[in-house]
Amino acid sequence: MSRKQDRSVAVVGGGVIGLSTAWRLAVAGHRVRLIDPAPASGGASRAAGGMLAPVAEAWPGEESLLELGTASLHRWPEFAERLGRDSGKPSGLRDEGTLVVAADSADRAELDTLADYLASLGRTVNRHSSRRLRRLEPALGPGVRGGLEVPGDLAVDNRATLEALRAAAEVAGVEFVRAAARGVRSGTVELVDAADPEPGLSGSVVHCDVVVIAAGVQTGALHPALRGAIRPVKGEILRLRARSTSVPPPRWTVRGPVHGRQVYLVPREDGMVIGATQYEAGYDTEVTVGGVRNLLADAERFVPGITEYALVETAAGLRPSTEDNLPLLGWVEPGVLVAAGHHRNGFLLAPITAETVVGLVSGDEVATEAKAADPSRSGGQQ
Amino acid sequence: MSRKQDRSVAVVGGGVIGLSTAWRLAVAGHRVRLIDPAPASGGASRAAGGMLAPVAEAWPGEESLLELGTASLHRWPEFAERLGRDSGKPSGLRDEGTLVVAADSADRAELDTLADYLASLGRTVNRHSSRRLRRLEPALGPGVRGGLEVPGDLAVDNRATLEALRAAAEVAGVEFVRAAARGVRSGTVELVDAADPEPGLSGSVVHCDVVVIAAGVQTGALHPALRGAIRPVKGEILRLRARSTSVPPPRWTVRGPVHGRQVYLVPREDGMVIGATQYEAGYDTEVTVGGVRNLLADAERFVPGITEYALVETAAGLRPSTEDNLPLLGWVEPGVLVAAGHHRNGFLLAPITAETVVGLVSGDEVATEAKAADPSRSGGQQ
Repeated sequence: MSRKQDRSVAVVGGGVIGLSTAWRLAVAGHRVRLIDPAPASGGASRAAGGMLAPVAEAWPGEESLLELGTASLHRWPEFAERLGRDSGKPSGLRDEGTLVVAADSADRAELDTLADYLASLGRTVNRHSSRRLRRLEPALGPGVRGGLEVPGDLAVDNRATLEALRAAAEVAGVEFVRAAARGVRSGTVELVDAADPEPGLSGSVVHCDVVVIAAGVQTGALHPALRGAIRPVKGEILRLRARSTSVPPPRWTVRGPVHGRQVYLVPREDGMVIGATQYEAGYDTEVTVGGVRNLLADAERFVPGITEYALVETAAGLRPSTEDNLPLLGWVEPGVLVAAGHHRNGFLLAPITAETVVGLVSGDEVATEAKAADPSRSGGQQ
Repeated sequence: MSRKQDRSVAVVGGGVIGLSTAWRLAVAGHRVRLIDPAPASGGASRAAGGMLAPVAEAWPGEESLLELGTASLHRWPEFAERLGRDSGKPSGLRDEGTLVVAADSADRAELDTLADYLASLGRTVNRHSSRRLRRLEPALGPGVRGGLEVPGDLAVDNRATLEALRAAAEVAGVEFVRAAARGVRSGTVELVDAADPEPGLSGSVVHCDVVVIAAGVQTGALHPALRGAIRPVKGEILRLRARSTSVPPPRWTVRGPVHGRQVYLVPREDGMVIGATQYEAGYDTEVTVGGVRNLLADAERFVPGITEYALVETAAGLRPSTEDNLPLLGWVEPGVLVAAGHHRNGFLLAPITAETVVGLVSGDEVATEAKAADPSRSGGQQ
């Protein structure tokens, strides 16, 4: 394969995947335009919890995803360091570890399944009694019935990371086209309404050598070959801030099943993020009473001290999900790449996704782990 | 007492009491300035549920408040009609009745105490079985253990009413001074920072014949004689909107104790308001996790269908409360009136408060029921 540089690339989508990809493409020497009405400011990336947790989220049957996630997690420290350097802003990477805890004996059995599975893959997690867990993390409540310590899983402050990515892309020379895309063909992106057409836009069409579709749940509407490949999975999330009267936030990311329902609490500088519900109900992004009630009840079960926290935000986003929970990452047709369908794992998979897109655009070899995500796979993982 | 017209009046405070008072004073022929950095847009009035419920909120020992509230409730239909006419906007008055319901047998005993008390005053409320209540209001859940139907108690959409009051005051010729007051003396209001001094402002002082202090929880800071007379009682409130998938909102205002904790659900055009927590914790207006969790749990106990509603707003306000829960309504010194300390009852008491202030300023007789609220009373009700 011959190496190609200085290609003209249009990236459709300004979430974590689109921004990461545009930034790395520009750094690699390509001319990049990023098409989004409001980059870094909406969608699933803004609503995210920000866990980088391939191990804590592993599950039998999803080995390809675990391998892809692990490969991307290994790239995160260097990715974050470059991001901080290029953007001049905090990368958002946090170094708290993860505790996966259980609320009852059925939940505990679920964690045992996870631990056994990981052991069978040669990955070790530490099983702890509830007493031992509370010694590690005093914020845990009496409702915790044992759990696992997962070394290595990390987290990011998703909004800090988005802002750093936007700045790094700008510094690297990415041109932001603030418009929505209507459709993609090889070599062109048609815009919905280019209110203020910029140089390089011929009418309301962007011309380029390669289009990268990184449009989350809107991806399927942009190209006929992607129709129906990605469905929205709604998630609600809460943002809490510590008050002068409240106990300090946990020092660990705390997550796990509460009577079978998953909840996580991810520390932030001034509080924490609690997520996330899961509904398959179309393009609905309203926050519901039932969702908030469940998140608060489940999070309180693990960390009772949140009662005194301020509830500063409720939000919902749409995870772009595929049949097998792996993203779509590769050529759709000549001149058109897809980098979408990252489900719960957009932040985790950003480094390997960006690297893979740069490799495909430049004609370089790509990481082995990324090959399972090629969009030509038919259904389930290999 | 000689009748006085065309006096120059400065009303400090742009909540429901300040706006109502300013409007009625202007209609009565006085020259009125209303001093508030952002009238009709903040504070307890904006956070309020809007119940006009002197009977449902009656309690032994608070007879003066019941009489004052009843007198004001009788004035509401005419007040609302004038408000709609003067403002050209909806007055916000709603005609749903009120059901006071109970969640357990102790709660039911509390309602029996209320019903017996009202009967002893010659006021009738109808006691109903839970079956009968559900026939009246199908939205009630199986957790309801009987209750009372209160004829006559009404409600307003507080934000619609505030907007109508603002418009009516403007139409009536009230001049809005968008500044905060620092202190009040007879004949003058000193402003904090008159960024853009208007005609009639000498430096940063407003001169007038009469000052009306209607500044809610800030009232005590404005005049030495009022120091400590009003304390903030924090209340959290939620706003819900019906979704296409949700059951319709209740046709009644539903309220009552849930295991001893009061909750209310007040219908709105597109959903409902749920309130309200009570904390005595100074000037804190943050919404807490515990507050939201309790409101949702208690409201769901009465109306389980809210689970599917959208949670569109969480907010907190500070009720301006006095020792005996009656407002402070009368002369503080010559040239200075107070109309504040309305606790949970600002909207309910707006008509009689405005009428009383107009009477006092004009030198007319005031309603008998308002005399108990004279600020010269010492502690408890007579």
